[in-house]
Amino acid sequence: MGTALNEFQIKEALAKLPGWASGDDSISKTFRFTSFPEAIGFIAEMAFACEKANHHPELSNVYSTVTIRLCTHDAGNKVTLKDVDLAGEIEKLAKKRDYQATI
Amino acid sequence: MGTALNEFQIKEALAKLPGWASGDDSISKTFRFTSFPEAIGFIAEMAFACEKANHHPELSNVYSTVTIRLCTHDAGNKVTLKDVDLAGEIEKLAKKRDYQATI
Amino acid sequence: MGTALNEFQIKEALAKLPGWASGDDSISKTFRFTSFPEAIGFIAEMAFACEKANHHPELSNVYSTVTIRLCTHDAGNKVTLKDVDLAGEIEKLAKKRDYQATI
Amino acid sequence: MGTALNEFQIKEALAKLPGWASGDDSISKTFRFTSFPEAIGFIAEMAFACEKANHHPELSNVYSTVTIRLCTHDAGNKVTLKDVDLAGEIEKLAKKRDYQATI
Repeated sequence: MGTALNEFQIKEALAKLPGWASGDDSISKTFRFTSFPEAIGFIAEMAFACEKANHHPELSNVYSTVTIRLCTHDAGNKVTLKDVDLAGEIEKLAKKRDYQATI
Repeated sequence: MGTALNEFQIKEALAKLPGWASGDDSISKTFRFTSFPEAIGFIAEMAFACEKANHHPELSNVYSTVTIRLCTHDAGNKVTLKDVDLAGEIEKLAKKRDYQATI
Repeated sequence: MGTALNEFQIKEALAKLPGWASGDDSISKTFRFTSFPEAIGFIAEMAFACEKANHHPELSNVYSTVTIRLCTHDAGNKVTLKDVDLAGEIEKLAKKRDYQATI
Repeated sequence: MGTALNEFQIKEALAKLPGWASGDDSISKTFRFTSFPEAIGFIAEMAFACEKANHHPELSNVYSTVTIRLCTHDAGNKVTLKDVDLAGEIEKLAKKRDYQATI
């Protein structure tokens, strides 16, 4: 779990995570929801997946957008399977809602 | 806004609110979501609609279910347009998610 | 964990949980916070303790009050140590805030 | 409300907002709470103050920290009274909890 993925492995993982991008030794995605309350509700919900995985993203919110950036502190702030797995969980939760991926 | 609706008016209003039932001088619905975190996320989101309307339901949660019961204190705990309007707002938010109405 | 506590054991446990009452084969407490947003924030926070314990209360909210009722489904809806432990966790979180216990 | 404050006015306003700093045409503060759930609960609560003011910060969260950055879009992304007022509201909510201001 704690081993940094190489660029090829990250690319392969992101192929299954539409809208997620890699860069700066992290993977990230910005979700644009329909309102500020929906963004807050999404944060409240996805936080359980983070806590369960004992893995916490850098999360930011402006109005109806939520950006999630993941890397693994214990692996020298590189991208690991832990990040890819949590991104997958978050993606599943976001898919149930109206959102647009933004870049 | 503060006038109690009669039985006929409530029935008419509920015709547009699938799954909402009237009884005990209130209107209510139970939503079953896919998980406890989703129920909590829904509560966090729908709470903004309540606060905006300055109208607050009796809200209850057990695991993945959320029950919302609405009546108007200022109208002698009867059902008013305020309740119908907030039910409509809550319904819109719930519709964006996977849920089953339960009785 | 799954064994129902007897009346004496429940009384003993509640001695350490001020404001919690037993009855109807459950233990419960009503917290009155300073506002509806604070009540919702408390729900969002305490929900993590529930999820971590994999134990979920009957939770209800009206405006600034939150009522938590705990019993153990797997023990025939009786009060067990699981309920007492979760009540202790919830109590710790509530203590950090302004609230009044109400009956 | 929409007029940009000058440096002196910002300094004067921040004197009443301990731990808030100005820079980059915004005012900001980082709160360190005792846990990730408490940080999420704080976000869920303070979001109501934002929605009420119809003013939304740049909010970020990493584990138990929450950073709030405020500026006014309609005033060319400068600091206005709207920012100072919302910072005051947020400060009141944070004060009710255990947190450390961090820089």
